[in-house]
Amino acid sequence: MAKVLASKDSDYAQWYNDLVIKADLAENSAVRGSMVIKPYGYAIWEKMQAELDRMFKETGHVNAYFPLFIPKSFFSKEASHVEGFAKECAVVTHYRLKNDPNGKGVIVDPDAKLEEELIVRPTSETVIWDTYRKWIQSYRDLPIKINQWANVVRWEMRTRLFLRTAEFLWQEGHTAHASKQEAIEEAETMLNVYATFLENFMAIPVLKGIKTESERFAGAVETYCVEALMQDGKALQAGTSHFLGQNFAKAFDVTFATKEGTNELVWATSWGVSTRLIGALIMTHSDNNGLVLPPKLAPHQVVIVPIYRKDEEFEKVDAAAKDIVQKLRAAGISVHYDNRDTHKPGWKFNEYELKGVPVRIAIGPRDLEKQQVELARRDTLEKSFQPMEGLTGVIADILEQMQTSLLERARKRTQDGTYAVDTWEEFTEAVKNRGGFIKAHWDGTAETERIIKEKTKATIRCIELDAPEEEGVCVFSGKPSKRRVVFAKAY
Amino acid sequence: MAKVLASKDSDYAQWYNDLVIKADLAENSAVRGSMVIKPYGYAIWEKMQAELDRMFKETGHVNAYFPLFIPKSFFSKEASHVEGFAKECAVVTHYRLKNDPNGKGVIVDPDAKLEEELIVRPTSETVIWDTYRKWIQSYRDLPIKINQWANVVRWEMRTRLFLRTAEFLWQEGHTAHASKQEAIEEAETMLNVYATFLENFMAIPVLKGIKTESERFAGAVETYCVEALMQDGKALQAGTSHFLGQNFAKAFDVTFATKEGTNELVWATSWGVSTRLIGALIMTHSDNNGLVLPPKLAPHQVVIVPIYRKDEEFEKVDAAAKDIVQKLRAAGISVHYDNRDTHKPGWKFNEYELKGVPVRIAIGPRDLEKQQVELARRDTLEKSFQPMEGLTGVIADILEQMQTSLLERARKRTQDGTYAVDTWEEFTEAVKNRGGFIKAHWDGTAETERIIKEKTKATIRCIELDAPEEEGVCVFSGKPSKRRVVFAKAY
Repeated sequence: MAKVLASKDSDYAQWYNDLVIKADLAENSAVRGSMVIKPYGYAIWEKMQAELDRMFKETGHVNAYFPLFIPKSFFSKEASHVEGFAKECAVVTHYRLKNDPNGKGVIVDPDAKLEEELIVRPTSETVIWDTYRKWIQSYRDLPIKINQWANVVRWEMRTRLFLRTAEFLWQEGHTAHASKQEAIEEAETMLNVYATFLENFMAIPVLKGIKTESERFAGAVETYCVEALMQDGKALQAGTSHFLGQNFAKAFDVTFATKEGTNELVWATSWGVSTRLIGALIMTHSDNNGLVLPPKLAPHQVVIVPIYRKDEEFEKVDAAAKDIVQKLRAAGISVHYDNRDTHKPGWKFNEYELKGVPVRIAIGPRDLEKQQVELARRDTLEKSFQPMEGLTGVIADILEQMQTSLLERARKRTQDGTYAVDTWEEFTEAVKNRGGFIKAHWDGTAETERIIKEKTKATIRCIELDAPEEEGVCVFSGKPSKRRVVFAKAY
Repeated sequence: MAKVLASKDSDYAQWYNDLVIKADLAENSAVRGSMVIKPYGYAIWEKMQAELDRMFKETGHVNAYFPLFIPKSFFSKEASHVEGFAKECAVVTHYRLKNDPNGKGVIVDPDAKLEEELIVRPTSETVIWDTYRKWIQSYRDLPIKINQWANVVRWEMRTRLFLRTAEFLWQEGHTAHASKQEAIEEAETMLNVYATFLENFMAIPVLKGIKTESERFAGAVETYCVEALMQDGKALQAGTSHFLGQNFAKAFDVTFATKEGTNELVWATSWGVSTRLIGALIMTHSDNNGLVLPPKLAPHQVVIVPIYRKDEEFEKVDAAAKDIVQKLRAAGISVHYDNRDTHKPGWKFNEYELKGVPVRIAIGPRDLEKQQVELARRDTLEKSFQPMEGLTGVIADILEQMQTSLLERARKRTQDGTYAVDTWEEFTEAVKNRGGFIKAHWDGTAETERIIKEKTKATIRCIELDAPEEEGVCVFSGKPSKRRVVFAKAY
């Protein structure tokens, strides 16, 4: 097979981009930084959405929808939020076009200028807290636990498909609580929901931690995060959950009457994951032959390719294939039967390998005689012959094994890539040549963090929630430190 | 109960608005014309989405996602499309804000002006056909049958919650075909999907027809539509399906190599329904007490309200209620058990009546003694006592009856409101005083259509697909006509 992807080892970034394009996941559009999510990529997102949505509802959340546009003035209300978000964003200034008097298409109608410009939401805290003010009067109105599935826009200068795009799809949860404790518990619960989803469905092991002050979400008191290690040794922030304290309640004047009759500011959280997760999925499992998908998120878990020369052969093979399709579907296994006569079996094999279909079944006349099929497993690339009798059970087992084994493989890689260093020399050497999650002591100052980032491009990914207390000295400044933090270069 | 809604008979528009607000469906936001869809309203939309999405997939469609922003120049490419769509729309001109040098919040950075303005999509034909050009080379690449769930923006001057908002949620299908016949069949198939969904799930009977040239979608060769009659005698366009001919293929240069080796322009359709359907749902079934929901779309089909004074009473009632909850859920019936002690039963009764929960169950100590519950049916407002034994079956039957009976009731109302008139005097009188679907002869000219609209505000809603041939004379011009068309005032 002619390799259609750049090699992972020689050019990881090019391999990634080739894979996204060739596996039909997404492509760039005519608008700079905005991608088209193609049906196959979107089908993976739908699987992820369905599962997350179920988990959100099980933890007591409901969905709603808030406006795309946010008045510019809203961004000035929360001091740190404006710094973090209101800068690189799409600004709507007019509401009408008109015919060009010179006959050259359409132009913006200067008479249709908005009194106040509208910002296309980069995140929705402001518009939501402006709304919550009207919904919350007393403790009886709390908690509010709402999630929104939406598109957001951040005017990124350097974009990469799924990882960083001007427009992306995401979910954003926004909750309101009567007590600080309850809000912190909510932020932690949602962090755990993300970690569980990533491990159990995406087969991606994560570190759970909190961000340093400089890496915190603009407007948050505490930012919790899940961080994953990609194949090339770089970290990817997979999801964040923020304890917002009373910052947005203060900015938007949202108070409630307590049971005791006093009036207090409401406590808040917000949390989100985005289509960026598809990038994490690719960079955790895929190989030089293409995408590798955990069975729980594969649009098709099984593909069946018929092998035949003559029409009589096709008839028999077709009947056997349809029988397998029916049995697999009855067992709740999703299957695609590719009986197109416009493409050869070899082409189809490559195609489904590229697209990461977990199990490929081929059936030809000789297989029929032997009452067997050829089964290829995408993660290991192993091929075997399997009897038709009991095939459904065999496939169900393989899918389950594959789901587990992908997580184990990723976990081993992450563990191997996680290590401690103690000196500045070791540290710089580690960042430069080895990559991975580097556990090192840090003196706790934003200044040291900044210098380390400038010198090495490594950032503090998180302070792990379960980081043990350990006396040490900062890898850069030599000042005392009470625990190690996790450094890495990151996407 | 203090009436919380304006009376339907005295002020239908106010009643509608009151209901949307009080039943917690949606509300206006700080951005003119943009609504917040509240959790209860959004839950109805989710039910509708789930069903439509299933129907789209069953008819061979897949989902994808295209960019929110469309370059301004794209709108000039299809001549009639620019007239219809590129006018009242949100225009992004800048991509950055900066701190006001005078310290007054943030201002638009004049240095961050886009070279070409971006339009927030009012509909996506242009950006999608620009993409399809890259996807389509040969007949092997066809058909493409894609649907998108998305938000769109049209800068409406007069907005009404759900019925006409600047931003709304919808689905838009965009398909590409190798032959004219196949594209026409697709447009008709999707019209039928909409009609089936409206009748079987929303319990809304519809007329199926085609639009006149002046009411056609900008860029379409034929616009098919489903039209429903609201309680106040006005029509509402519930969904449209367009046969676009080769117009967009021509505008975006999308051709394909045929089997025979020639090169031809691709044939297109597009079709959509939006959150406007929630307005149709309200104005088809609801009453002066609030929302009435067809059971298939109700977020909760059953609500249980416990009645008690003392704690010991609550314990017993609570146990019985939980038992019912479990049995209903096991039977696939969605149920909400409202055991809050912060609200009285009477308040809850009103609340769930307002929100249109199909079946309300109340259980008190006396009911327990008699092993019965009180059951209130939302559509008829009938109350009855039902034995606990076999309650699940009784409720399942009632829900099924209610779904059918709501459709029948709406069908009868629509039939009673559909009638023929033959003279101009009858016509103007009918439009003015009776409303409804008025079947009248029309001479087929846009000029007559325009004058009738000016004089009466009635428009031709559709030419029914099954309209029988019938010789007659135009109700306005007296010129000959071959069939009646359907006039109405419309939302």
